Amino acid sequence: MTAARPKEIRFNALEQGNPSFQSFGLWAHPRDKAIDYTSQRYWADYARLLERGLFDNLFIADVYGMPDVYRGNSDGALRNGSQAPSVDPALLLPGMAAVTENLCFTMTGSATYERPYQFARRISTLDHLLEGRLGWNIVTSYLGSGARAMGLDGLIPHDRRYEMADEFCEGVYRLWEESWGEGALQKDKATRVYADPSRIKRIDFDGEFHRFSAIHATEPSPQRTPVLFQAGGSSRGRQFAATHAEGIYLNGTTIEIVRDKIATMTKELESLGRSRDSVKFFAGVSVFVDETDELARATYNDYLQWSSLEGLISTMSGIMGIDLSQYPLDEPIVYEENDSNRTALEMFTRNNSWTLRQVLDEKALCGTNMALVGSAQHVADELIRWMDETDLDGFNIARIVAHETYEKFIDLVVPILQERGRYKTEYAPGTFREKLFGETRIPETHVAGSFRR
Amino acid sequence: MTAARPKEIRFNALEQGNPSFQSFGLWAHPRDKAIDYTSQRYWADYARLLERGLFDNLFIADVYGMPDVYRGNSDGALRNGSQAPSVDPALLLPGMAAVTENLCFTMTGSATYERPYQFARRISTLDHLLEGRLGWNIVTSYLGSGARAMGLDGLIPHDRRYEMADEFCEGVYRLWEESWGEGALQKDKATRVYADPSRIKRIDFDGEFHRFSAIHATEPSPQRTPVLFQAGGSSRGRQFAATHAEGIYLNGTTIEIVRDKIATMTKELESLGRSRDSVKFFAGVSVFVDETDELARATYNDYLQWSSLEGLISTMSGIMGIDLSQYPLDEPIVYEENDSNRTALEMFTRNNSWTLRQVLDEKALCGTNMALVGSAQHVADELIRWMDETDLDGFNIARIVAHETYEKFIDLVVPILQERGRYKTEYAPGTFREKLFGETRIPETHVAGSFRR
Repeated sequence: MTAARPKEIRFNALEQGNPSFQSFGLWAHPRDKAIDYTSQRYWADYARLLERGLFDNLFIADVYGMPDVYRGNSDGALRNGSQAPSVDPALLLPGMAAVTENLCFTMTGSATYERPYQFARRISTLDHLLEGRLGWNIVTSYLGSGARAMGLDGLIPHDRRYEMADEFCEGVYRLWEESWGEGALQKDKATRVYADPSRIKRIDFDGEFHRFSAIHATEPSPQRTPVLFQAGGSSRGRQFAATHAEGIYLNGTTIEIVRDKIATMTKELESLGRSRDSVKFFAGVSVFVDETDELARATYNDYLQWSSLEGLISTMSGIMGIDLSQYPLDEPIVYEENDSNRTALEMFTRNNSWTLRQVLDEKALCGTNMALVGSAQHVADELIRWMDETDLDGFNIARIVAHETYEKFIDLVVPILQERGRYKTEYAPGTFREKLFGETRIPETHVAGSFRR
Repeated sequence: MTAARPKEIRFNALEQGNPSFQSFGLWAHPRDKAIDYTSQRYWADYARLLERGLFDNLFIADVYGMPDVYRGNSDGALRNGSQAPSVDPALLLPGMAAVTENLCFTMTGSATYERPYQFARRISTLDHLLEGRLGWNIVTSYLGSGARAMGLDGLIPHDRRYEMADEFCEGVYRLWEESWGEGALQKDKATRVYADPSRIKRIDFDGEFHRFSAIHATEPSPQRTPVLFQAGGSSRGRQFAATHAEGIYLNGTTIEIVRDKIATMTKELESLGRSRDSVKFFAGVSVFVDETDELARATYNDYLQWSSLEGLISTMSGIMGIDLSQYPLDEPIVYEENDSNRTALEMFTRNNSWTLRQVLDEKALCGTNMALVGSAQHVADELIRWMDETDLDGFNIARIVAHETYEKFIDLVVPILQERGRYKTEYAPGTFREKLFGETRIPETHVAGSFRR
């Protein structure tokens, strides 16, 4: 399945505005800097580092609420700084953009809890300030605590959230693409015309979940619609991603899983009239690299000493929606044929004879990502193999220890990939979409582009 | 009424994320830079300039929707870049904070259209990133177009909006001050405890307008509650300001008006158990200064050539809620005893024999601010006189031509005020509230402080 001309590998750094989010407890590691995640300097250093490594994108995940399924409260999450507390990802971007020129930034925004007019303005403002280096990770927010924080009695059912998200997206697309026609923005000091009202349209939106009547508040930004990311794994989530996503983040611990997921998504895309090339696929990976395999393994084992079982089990309970405290830690997990948790548990414990502790130990440092542990040569070999044996476009590399994870990766792995001609030696010019696809505006084959006037 | 020891004068720069907002049409002036207001560089230059002038604060006004009362549409506003289009003020702050050390920033946030959990997180994130240099201008949003943009049929009545705002404030105060008890945040690498859940409380809020159940998402920021600004001029607005505001922005074209407004507000404050010293009062002023009175007058006249009647009348119609196109431009405005617009028109046209054009010409460059036109000596004299003959703490100085307004003021007026001992020669240390009041946390005599545990 090797392509005639091998693809260049793209990297996103995978982050969240939290003390720890995929390698729980590591904030306490002596060399970890995530304890400073509320400061601008922390994020500015981060952005400069990633730009030195020619990363495409810093991808900032986010949740509403705090994990509170484990033992029915957020104690475990708070005690371990596990996805809680958090900062608003949107506000991290302007400071980082100020110290970089090419690195792009993807912020998570909830299609369940945002309101179209406000959200569209916020995104347009950011796309202006970032000169088009913006992506939006569309999520539907899975925590019940997030629903209650937003005034609901509980979580809106999964598929219903995706229906809402389809409608939310239509609303913001129309504000971005339809409200200000081409040429509406004049900014002409000679004629003293700022904008031409005859080319500006009020959007009257009357949906099932959202309603508004407004001219888009903000003049057209470089990309108008930011680069759209999505990570939905369910059937309904895949349908949503096939409709909306330009970047798809998928998880898989084996090449076969990743290959199958891309093939499935490609079919979904094509059934909607979108080509395989209209989307970039990224797999989540956690990298533990050093000069030699032995040093890398030692690093892995050192990190493992700092991982927190309570932090991990709190977050996993939140993600699965199952209070894992009801299962014994050191015996194989047993569930009945009709256990309502069965499907989730099966996905979680693919090896039936494992105990909960064994499952959690395996996930302690890398969550649901595949893990690569070894020398720079080994890691580079593996990344290339994954590229060539699947149809991936690149990887989301998760933070384990800030900023050491990326320092080592950039110093050790990136030069090897460059030598092998599989990694860029300078950035492509322009906006995020231009760097990814060669065009700044979303294509007309995409639903957002269909609203262009 | 001169105080024994004259007060130092404080300055806020008054801005809005728009091409023009108090001096309509001036974006087209050859030296004006506001056309770049969507870029980070524009705001970074701005912030550096204000910090060089030892300004306390950059105050960013904001509206939801666009003026659309004049002729029933937004054409006049859009054509002239008058309060439309706009960018989200919150996102301008991190980039400016990154290039300054002491300048503080006040963003406008709507208590009518924001939701407590989201807004509280956004504010806390900013207060972290700005290291406590944050203020919040609490508004209730007066445009019908803003209401429709947020899905309502029309504007919620004025006093009802203030009831909502009281409740909104209680919600966010409780998240900021009550949810995380003192000592809850540990961040202790030795014990590996990030936060102590026993000192963290979920806020169960069940109000008339807002409902949520949540632990505040973000760990306590330096100030927790940002410095609270308000500008309500109505009776209900004054009551709200007396309850909540630590900084009050008031308008008045004469010393008597300003003196009366401060006296009235002081009585309201004291009736609520708050002292005069718990609030700083700032009057809006538009300054046209140059080396000599003649040069200043020439500058004023030059600027006037660039002002836009259509831009002004569109915005004034929006603020007044009256379509001014129904009145003739060049005859004195006549209204019946029972004209529903009478109160607003009386405030607007205090000289009954004036034509609409005369009123608008007077307001063309300074809106509802008082205007100071003259040499630096004259402007300094006048500012000191206003301080000494009222009980003001300082001024909100409006942008006329970006960034020339502040360049001239800082180069010409500030040194004279410093020579006279009426202006600081260096910043006080610390957070915004510490610079203003000597304490970083809001006092317990304030309703927000009453929630502290």
